[in-house]
Amino acid sequence: MNKYQLRVHTIQESLREQRASLLVVSPGANMLFLSGFSDQSSERLLLFFLPQDGDPFFVAPELYADQIMANSPFFRIHAWKDAEGPMQTLACALAPCRQTARSVLVDEGMRADSLLLIQEALPQARFAPASPVIRRLRMRKDQEELSLLAEAASIADHALAEISQLRFSGLTERELARALEEAMVAGSAEGIAFETLVASGPNSALPHHRAGQRRIERGDVVILDFGCRVGGYCSDITRTVVCGEPAPDVRAAHQVVAEAQEQAVRAVRPGATAQEIDQIARGAIAAAGLGERFIHRTGHGVGLDVHEEPYIVAGNPLTLEQGMVFTVEPGVYFPGQFGVRVEDVVVVTDSSVRRLNRYSRALQIVR
Amino acid sequence: MNKYQLRVHTIQESLREQRASLLVVSPGANMLFLSGFSDQSSERLLLFFLPQDGDPFFVAPELYADQIMANSPFFRIHAWKDAEGPMQTLACALAPCRQTARSVLVDEGMRADSLLLIQEALPQARFAPASPVIRRLRMRKDQEELSLLAEAASIADHALAEISQLRFSGLTERELARALEEAMVAGSAEGIAFETLVASGPNSALPHHRAGQRRIERGDVVILDFGCRVGGYCSDITRTVVCGEPAPDVRAAHQVVAEAQEQAVRAVRPGATAQEIDQIARGAIAAAGLGERFIHRTGHGVGLDVHEEPYIVAGNPLTLEQGMVFTVEPGVYFPGQFGVRVEDVVVVTDSSVRRLNRYSRALQIVR
Repeated sequence: MNKYQLRVHTIQESLREQRASLLVVSPGANMLFLSGFSDQSSERLLLFFLPQDGDPFFVAPELYADQIMANSPFFRIHAWKDAEGPMQTLACALAPCRQTARSVLVDEGMRADSLLLIQEALPQARFAPASPVIRRLRMRKDQEELSLLAEAASIADHALAEISQLRFSGLTERELARALEEAMVAGSAEGIAFETLVASGPNSALPHHRAGQRRIERGDVVILDFGCRVGGYCSDITRTVVCGEPAPDVRAAHQVVAEAQEQAVRAVRPGATAQEIDQIARGAIAAAGLGERFIHRTGHGVGLDVHEEPYIVAGNPLTLEQGMVFTVEPGVYFPGQFGVRVEDVVVVTDSSVRRLNRYSRALQIVR
Repeated sequence: MNKYQLRVHTIQESLREQRASLLVVSPGANMLFLSGFSDQSSERLLLFFLPQDGDPFFVAPELYADQIMANSPFFRIHAWKDAEGPMQTLACALAPCRQTARSVLVDEGMRADSLLLIQEALPQARFAPASPVIRRLRMRKDQEELSLLAEAASIADHALAEISQLRFSGLTERELARALEEAMVAGSAEGIAFETLVASGPNSALPHHRAGQRRIERGDVVILDFGCRVGGYCSDITRTVVCGEPAPDVRAAHQVVAEAQEQAVRAVRPGATAQEIDQIARGAIAAAGLGERFIHRTGHGVGLDVHEEPYIVAGNPLTLEQGMVFTVEPGVYFPGQFGVRVEDVVVVTDSSVRRLNRYSRALQIVR
């Protein structure tokens, strides 16, 4: 058995345990992880079905058939034609389980149009999210996956070292984002892991600000949040820098966040829980009187997806295990003024933790 | 009323006509078009609800609230916190229509996890795709939209003119894709509209091959399929070039495809149907004995999404109207050998058609 057949086999065992009839994945990380093939999600229905027993199969547009066979020759394809639409092919492929499928698990990222068609084809079934079954397999990375994640992190670190030599003042956020992306691709990344965030001045107070046309000025706080892909696996790092001499409140906020991140990372080990790690970061920031400024979770898993399990968030009782990989990224935000965030990817080792990012976490001054 | 309030008002009228209780859109083009705000889709539930009567509202992660208010100050936000998850906030926001909502229209691109939660919150409702209601509004572009589409097309044309000066042989597909993307951004595009496709040699026979590490050699057919965004609106152009002297069969196939494209474009006018345009391209290719090699639809609409209504495909009886914008892109594919595709974006005018791409459609020889 190759690694895909092995992964499918493990999922089918889980389906039997959980008495689920069928698991359906859509284009993206789950499809790539389980079948060896994926593509960008589009309005053309493309799904990979894993029944509890029997052979997995694709329902796919005819024009993908050659590519699926080239990348994933292990599984059958039910191909549909543009002129006919997917419904009949889907109904035929699902006919054997139309009466028997009671519980169907679906990829959380599946498009609603695909889900509505499956619901029509399997009117007796109940539908639930698939990740409880898939995440067990995806969360604990093997050696091959860990080395790809380490390489992706290292490329991001080096890109940051390179662009930190630039004169920031006068560049637009988007120009800086582009420079980071080019440095990562030059460093042999396959591409970026997500849209590079560069948030300068008051924009840095918006946790999800994207790079825009604002020009960086002296005195600005600049948050850089970016990552790349290697072999499909992502990196994700955030550093907060200052263009010129930092104001005292910026320096103080950065120290609180960097220290909170340090404490949270140090607490990572097998047996700790996701919510404990979140609470340690949150407690450190609250102790400095900035609790209300930390308005997001502490972190998220990283792998084939840049956001995946385990989520490092209050209320997540998940116990950390060796091989899990996630970000630790506390931040504080002062609307209209500035924000600070510091983020690294870490891996749970057999007894403690290892950072995949090596770039300094000290407050950096750029030109 | 601003343009967003006007669009919402028009949608609410359609909902009353169709007796639909509620329309729900997810991050992406529909949200941007109707509310003025959008973001990348993520695992955090972010939805915009338009009830048949009453005020539209967002259900959104708390950390997006400031950005939503900045971009879309017209509508209420029900914000949920990471630590609590979205379900309670969603249930409260939907409580007024829990008993009454019978028919709910959902964005085709919505994530399955969001749809499953809405289905849980509205157990009495039936769910159907929203595009029949939204597409009427989105398909016919206004002047502002048309000028953005024209600019995006022009930037792509110029990028192609620029990179056609390069020596192709020796470059990898990915390097060429990167050069195209950089030329578009240098030409003041906001970014790319979709992952740039560069398919060389036998890869050109795979209609959805992405740019890979294959190095282009003399004699290769190379398909370039790419586009950029301006003001959110997309371009999408395909040209097939040959590195060195074309083989006779390549030249012949290109002539068939270019002529089929020409005939199909000339047939576009208000009153023609989408399937007629598809049939004209298909008929021209079949007449040359290559009917079985044309394995995809003839085109797709282009706007805030790079693939949207109207789809130019057999079985689509939609009547074309002034202001509709779509691609015409016939192609033929010889597995293991080569493929040819020629694509332009066109707009339906008051009496005929106008191409937005001006780049030559003759078979181009590159170095």
